[in-house]
Amino acid sequence: MNNLFVIKIGGNVIDNPAALENFLADFAAIRAPKILVHGGGKIATRLGDKLGIESKYIDGRRITDDETIDLVTMVYGGLVNKKIVAQLQSLGCNAMGVTGADGNLVPAIKRPVEEIDYGWVGDVAAESLPASRWQLLLDNGIVPVLAPLTHDNAGHILNTNADTMASSIAVALSAVYSTRLIYCFEKKGVLEFVEDEHSVIHTITKASYARLKAEQKLFAGILPKLDNAFAAIDAGVKEVLIGHADDLLQNTTETTTGTLITA
Amino acid sequence: MNNLFVIKIGGNVIDNPAALENFLADFAAIRAPKILVHGGGKIATRLGDKLGIESKYIDGRRITDDETIDLVTMVYGGLVNKKIVAQLQSLGCNAMGVTGADGNLVPAIKRPVEEIDYGWVGDVAAESLPASRWQLLLDNGIVPVLAPLTHDNAGHILNTNADTMASSIAVALSAVYSTRLIYCFEKKGVLEFVEDEHSVIHTITKASYARLKAEQKLFAGILPKLDNAFAAIDAGVKEVLIGHADDLLQNTTETTTGTLITA
Repeated sequence: MNNLFVIKIGGNVIDNPAALENFLADFAAIRAPKILVHGGGKIATRLGDKLGIESKYIDGRRITDDETIDLVTMVYGGLVNKKIVAQLQSLGCNAMGVTGADGNLVPAIKRPVEEIDYGWVGDVAAESLPASRWQLLLDNGIVPVLAPLTHDNAGHILNTNADTMASSIAVALSAVYSTRLIYCFEKKGVLEFVEDEHSVIHTITKASYARLKAEQKLFAGILPKLDNAFAAIDAGVKEVLIGHADDLLQNTTETTTGTLITA
Repeated sequence: MNNLFVIKIGGNVIDNPAALENFLADFAAIRAPKILVHGGGKIATRLGDKLGIESKYIDGRRITDDETIDLVTMVYGGLVNKKIVAQLQSLGCNAMGVTGADGNLVPAIKRPVEEIDYGWVGDVAAESLPASRWQLLLDNGIVPVLAPLTHDNAGHILNTNADTMASSIAVALSAVYSTRLIYCFEKKGVLEFVEDEHSVIHTITKASYARLKAEQKLFAGILPKLDNAFAAIDAGVKEVLIGHADDLLQNTTETTTGTLITA
């Protein structure tokens, strides 16, 4: 099987033009098939402030109302996505910016209203993800750049978690490619001692994860990320890597500097 | 050769939610391969007003400055494009929203600065348009929905004329498909008597166009549209149709109600 890299970046890269430029130069240089998934960053909040659109919360959970979904559709699907595409094109990388709605590449359902109505928020329908349509793009030299939006099959765009979109795509494409899912993180990897930047744990397996948890060595904030990583691996992804955006190219090789998570 | 319809809509459809909904239902019902090209509409101007971004003009020509290109990238490439995609997906039409930058589907160059610096405006590099990449999408059941933006190969998005993008695509794809280029217009077609809505001229050929011009029968405003239509036909497009959005389905048949322009 060919290698595939599914790489997710968030606000710490998107909101810093110099960091983004460096990241995109490295991303463009990756020779294998690759997919970039980007989050939203702070631009939507800043633009929302200018437009008088307030961030809404219920019980501490962020709500996506009518104004907010239009805002994030513009910013994530338009401004952020197309700026990345234009920069990658200038680097000779044939990027194609899409949302999950485009070509129905990431099917989703509107989150059901239970205790909280999250508004226009989508949950990925991972089992329906059309791997062959992604493959069609990848096998023809197209580099998908995915914004964190989906649709509800009833004509509306939905705000959707970028981490989940990245892992769902990695899972679906693991049937066809030997897939490494890379989460760009603010640190060099998962740290054994949260205050020591040099204490990166270079590999975590299921067995070592159980041991680290039993010893209560890990910072609690990293546990959900690791649980999600092992869920992706259980669903067929070969490897998940958590590392810094600056180390992207190194982290696409065999000698990674971040944390490589495997079965 | 298979048929292909390249259909362009502008503000009179985009800015009217009911008209857009009707149009998209008809567009989704077209059975042949099809491409939708949309203009911008008034949403960008309205949002620009809210953000205090003024429309700039030099000698009566609209200029696309830094603020304006970000605005139209958000609105055309994000809000308008993705709303159309979500609506088409809900109608069972596998729409994929793109700009000319995505997959470099419509190569362009930044308009050279001569008497006027138009700013971030692109002119289509029609001779480099990658017909095979469009064909890849079309032949796999994907329906491209194109926003009027391109890129400059140096990392910037460019504002680009939607009519020209539509005709350039129709020309490039005429080598592979029997192509009808349809411009949705505010009237039912080209009128022989501009004040008489029932005076639609149902067919115009080069010979009849020469006669109509000699007799000075046509409204001057329509002449550039007809000149462009014949330029597309000279470059290989089988037919150009100018008609009302409400008549779309009829205008995809042999018995058109709009104005069919042929060699």
